[in-house]
Amino acid sequence: MELSLSELASHLGAEVRGDGSTRIGGVAPLSSAGANDVTFIADPAYRKQLGTTLAAAVIVSPALVDDVSGAALVVDDAYLAFAKTTQLFDNRPCSPVGVHPRAIVEDGVVLGDGVTIGPGAVVGRNSRIGAGTEIGAGCVIGSDCIIGDDCLLNANVTLYYGISIGDRVRVQSGAVIGSDGFGFAPNKGKWERIAQLGSVRIGNNVEIGANTCIDRGALEDTVIEDDVILDNLIQIAHNVYVGQGSAMAGCVGIAGSTRIGKGCTLAGGVGLAGHLTLADGVHVMGMTLITNSIDEPGAYASGTSHMPAKQWRRSAARFKQLDSIAKRLQKLEKIQEGKA
Amino acid sequence: MELSLSELASHLGAEVRGDGSTRIGGVAPLSSAGANDVTFIADPAYRKQLGTTLAAAVIVSPALVDDVSGAALVVDDAYLAFAKTTQLFDNRPCSPVGVHPRAIVEDGVVLGDGVTIGPGAVVGRNSRIGAGTEIGAGCVIGSDCIIGDDCLLNANVTLYYGISIGDRVRVQSGAVIGSDGFGFAPNKGKWERIAQLGSVRIGNNVEIGANTCIDRGALEDTVIEDDVILDNLIQIAHNVYVGQGSAMAGCVGIAGSTRIGKGCTLAGGVGLAGHLTLADGVHVMGMTLITNSIDEPGAYASGTSHMPAKQWRRSAARFKQLDSIAKRLQKLEKIQEGKA
Amino acid sequence: MELSLSELASHLGAEVRGDGSTRIGGVAPLSSAGANDVTFIADPAYRKQLGTTLAAAVIVSPALVDDVSGAALVVDDAYLAFAKTTQLFDNRPCSPVGVHPRAIVEDGVVLGDGVTIGPGAVVGRNSRIGAGTEIGAGCVIGSDCIIGDDCLLNANVTLYYGISIGDRVRVQSGAVIGSDGFGFAPNKGKWERIAQLGSVRIGNNVEIGANTCIDRGALEDTVIEDDVILDNLIQIAHNVYVGQGSAMAGCVGIAGSTRIGKGCTLAGGVGLAGHLTLADGVHVMGMTLITNSIDEPGAYASGTSHMPAKQWRRSAARFKQLDSIAKRLQKLEKIQEGKA
Repeated sequence: MELSLSELASHLGAEVRGDGSTRIGGVAPLSSAGANDVTFIADPAYRKQLGTTLAAAVIVSPALVDDVSGAALVVDDAYLAFAKTTQLFDNRPCSPVGVHPRAIVEDGVVLGDGVTIGPGAVVGRNSRIGAGTEIGAGCVIGSDCIIGDDCLLNANVTLYYGISIGDRVRVQSGAVIGSDGFGFAPNKGKWERIAQLGSVRIGNNVEIGANTCIDRGALEDTVIEDDVILDNLIQIAHNVYVGQGSAMAGCVGIAGSTRIGKGCTLAGGVGLAGHLTLADGVHVMGMTLITNSIDEPGAYASGTSHMPAKQWRRSAARFKQLDSIAKRLQKLEKIQEGKA
Repeated sequence: MELSLSELASHLGAEVRGDGSTRIGGVAPLSSAGANDVTFIADPAYRKQLGTTLAAAVIVSPALVDDVSGAALVVDDAYLAFAKTTQLFDNRPCSPVGVHPRAIVEDGVVLGDGVTIGPGAVVGRNSRIGAGTEIGAGCVIGSDCIIGDDCLLNANVTLYYGISIGDRVRVQSGAVIGSDGFGFAPNKGKWERIAQLGSVRIGNNVEIGANTCIDRGALEDTVIEDDVILDNLIQIAHNVYVGQGSAMAGCVGIAGSTRIGKGCTLAGGVGLAGHLTLADGVHVMGMTLITNSIDEPGAYASGTSHMPAKQWRRSAARFKQLDSIAKRLQKLEKIQEGKA
Repeated sequence: MELSLSELASHLGAEVRGDGSTRIGGVAPLSSAGANDVTFIADPAYRKQLGTTLAAAVIVSPALVDDVSGAALVVDDAYLAFAKTTQLFDNRPCSPVGVHPRAIVEDGVVLGDGVTIGPGAVVGRNSRIGAGTEIGAGCVIGSDCIIGDDCLLNANVTLYYGISIGDRVRVQSGAVIGSDGFGFAPNKGKWERIAQLGSVRIGNNVEIGANTCIDRGALEDTVIEDDVILDNLIQIAHNVYVGQGSAMAGCVGIAGSTRIGKGCTLAGGVGLAGHLTLADGVHVMGMTLITNSIDEPGAYASGTSHMPAKQWRRSAARFKQLDSIAKRLQKLEKIQEGKA
C-alpha cells in the first residue's frame, strides 16, 4: 500500500501543507515514524516531538499546525483522521473467498455473495450469512442464526443457536454469544435450572472483544444496540440492554437485566449489579462497583486510590472504625457547641 | 410444544384456578405475556402488573393468589415452578445422536448409549462418555477423561487429560477444565515450573459458565462438589475445593488451595486469596476481596459505594489521611477528658 | 516413572540422608505421601507434619533437616528442588509426533524437527513452527507467525497473524494472542476503528494462562519479555510492555501502553490504567487499582478489607462523609489551639 499525500488528504478531507506528491507507505508514531510514514498529533502534550519527527507529514488540527515545521495534513479532528488512515494501511491478511473444503456447512444454510468460511468452521442448520462476511477458522455458528453483511468473526468464535447480528460487526477470537444466562431457582440446597428461552440481538457496527461473553436472555432477548464497542473478557449477563454507542473496556461485568443508556463509557474492571438502569451519558471510572441505578449523566467512581502497602494497612484498619470516628467527632462537636 | 393448564399443573404439583383446558404454548413475563402464555409472579413488587397482564394463567403462591383476577396455578414456590415450566418450553435445538463424520474419536474411547459427538470435536484416547451425553462441535476432550451421563458440553469446550465429571453436568462454550495450575518456584529472577500432577473432579448437576477456567491440582485434585453452579469468566485455581450447592456469579476469582463451604454464594467479581477456608453459608457481596478465612456464616463485603467522581476524589484523598484523622481525634478526646 | 533416592538427589544437586537405594515413584504433600513418594517442606509452618508423614523421603533445607526423622534430600532451596522433582513425574500424555491427518497446514508453512500438530488444528500460510513444538487440537495459528522451539500450545489456542513467540513458551487452552487492540476514535456518537497495525512479540520461557488475551499493538508491538508468567483470564491491552521475569495472577487487567518493569508481581484481579510506568520490583496486592505511575519498588495496595456486611454498610456510608469529617476535625483543632 502506497499513496501520495494528496490522495491521502483527499480521502481524509484534509488540506495539504507541503508537497502533495510525497509518497506515503505507512503510519507510525511521532517518535518512530520514518521518511515514508505519515504520523499524527492529537494531544498537545506530544508537541515537543514535532521538532524531531522524521515523518513525511503530520496529521494535525488547525490549532497545532503552526508547530509543524514540515509537511502537514490539516484537518479538524486529527485523531479521527488518524483512525481513517490506519484503515488504509491495515495489514490483516485476506482470506480466500468461499467455503473452505474443511469447513462444515449444514443443511439449509444461506450464504451471501463473497462469504468466506474458514477451515474447521461449522455453520449450523438454516443459518444465514450476509454478503462479504468472513467466518474464521474453528468458529461454531449454531442453527438458525442470522449474521449480516460485511461482518468479521475471527477464529474460534462461538455463536449459539438463534442469534441475530447486524451488519459490519466484528467479533474477536474466543468470544461466546448466546450462552445460557445464569438463572436458577433454589430448591432445598440444590438449584433448578431456568431454561433460557430468549436470545441475543446485536445491532450494526458493533465490536466484540476476545473471550467476551454475551448470554442469551431468560424469557426475552439480551440486546446490544448499534455502534456499541466491547473490549476483551467482558461479561454481559442475560437480558442486559446496552444503548447505542456505549463503550466498555476490558474485564467489565454486567449482571442480569441491567439497562445501560446511550453513549455511556465503562472503564476497565467496572461491575454493575443486576436490574439497574444507567442514564445516557454515564461514565464510570475503572474498577468501580455500581449497585444502584444512576439517573444523572456524569462521572462516577468507587474504591480508594493505591498507596504503599504499609500505609494502606493503617488506612484500611481505620476504615473499619469509621462509624465510631464519625460519632466521636459529633460528640466533641456537641461539647464544643455547649461551650460556645 | 403446547399443553393444557391442567397438564402443566400436574407437572408442577400445582392447583388450577380457572379453566384447566386452556392451551399453554409458551412462558413470558407478566408485562409481555400473550393469551397463549403462562406467566409467574414471585416478587410482590410486581403485583401491580397482575391487573394488566394478558397471560392465560399466572403461576402464583397462595399468599398472592387473591391478587390474580384470571386463571392461576397455585403452588408453594412459584419461582421454582416457573423454573420447571421453562424447561418444558426449552427451545434448544436437538443435535442428531451419534458421532458426526467430521468428529475425531481416538482409540480406546468408550461411548454410552445415545451419545452425540459434534463436528470437529476431538475425544482423546481411552476417554469414556456416559449415556445421553452431548459433546458439542469443536470441543477437545483430552485422553483418559471420564464424563458421566446426560451431560452437555456446548461448542468449543476444552477438557485436558484425566478429568472426571459426574452426571447431568452442563458446560458452556469456551470453558477450560484441567489447565495447568499457576505454580512456579522463583529461581534467580526466573521461574521454575511446578508440573501440575493432580486433576479436576467435578460432581453431579454442576453448571460451568462460558470461558470459565478450572485449573488442575498441583499434587492433589481441584474439586467441585455436586450442585455447584458457576457463571461465566470465573477463575478457579489449582487445589480449590468448592462445597456442595455453592454458587458463583460472573468474573469471580479464587486463588489456589482455598476451600469454600456448602451453600455459599459469591456475587460477581468477588476475589478470594489463596489457602483460605470459608465456612458453610458464607455470602460475599459483589467485588469484595477476601484475604482471611471466614468461620461464621453470614454476609461479607469490602470496598466503598459509588459516588459522583468529583466527591469521590475528595473521599479517596481523605482515606489516605485516615490514620492521622483517627489519631488527631484521639488527641482532642484526651484533652476533653482532662477537662471533664 | 520410578527412580532411586540417589538418582533424584543427583538430579537435584541434593545430599542424601538415609538409604539412597530407596525407590521413589511419585511426589505428594506431607500429609498424604505414601511409602513410595518423596515429599517436601518449604514453609516451617508445616513442621509438625514431619512427625507423621509416611513419605519415603523429605526434600528439605539445612535449616529444617533436624526435624526430619526419616530419609531426607538436603538442598538449599527445597521449594525449587520440589519444582524440579514434579517435572520428573509429569503425567501429561505424550502426543504422537507429526501432523495429524485431520490438521490443516497451509502453503508455505515450515515445520521444525519433531513438531506435533493435533487434529483439527490450523496453521496459516508461511508460518514457521520450531523443533519439538506441539500445537494442540483445535488451535488456529494465523499466517506469518513464528513460533520457537519446544513450545506447547494446548488445545484451542488462537494466534492471529504475524505473531512472534520465542522458545519454551507454554500457552494454556483458550488463550488468544494478537487480537485487535481496543482503539477507536469518537465520531459523532459512533466509533471509528483504528486498525491495529502492530503485532505481539513474546520472549522465551513465557507462560500464558487459559483464556488470557494479549492484544496486538496499534502502531508498534505489544511485548512480553523473557520469563514472564501469566495466569488465566488476564487482559493485556495493545502496546503494553511486560518486563523480564514479571508475574501476574488470574484476572489481572492492563490497559493500553502501560509499561511494567522487571520482576514485578501483580496479584489476582489487579487493574492498571493505561499509559503508566511501573518501576522494576513493584508488587501489587490483590484487586488493587493503579491509576498513576509508580517509580519506587515496593508493595502497593488499594481498597478496603472485608467486614460483615452490616458493619461494612456503616463504614461505606461514612466514607462518603470523609471530607466533611476531616474538615470538622480541623475546625475543632483550631478552636483547641486558640485555647492553648
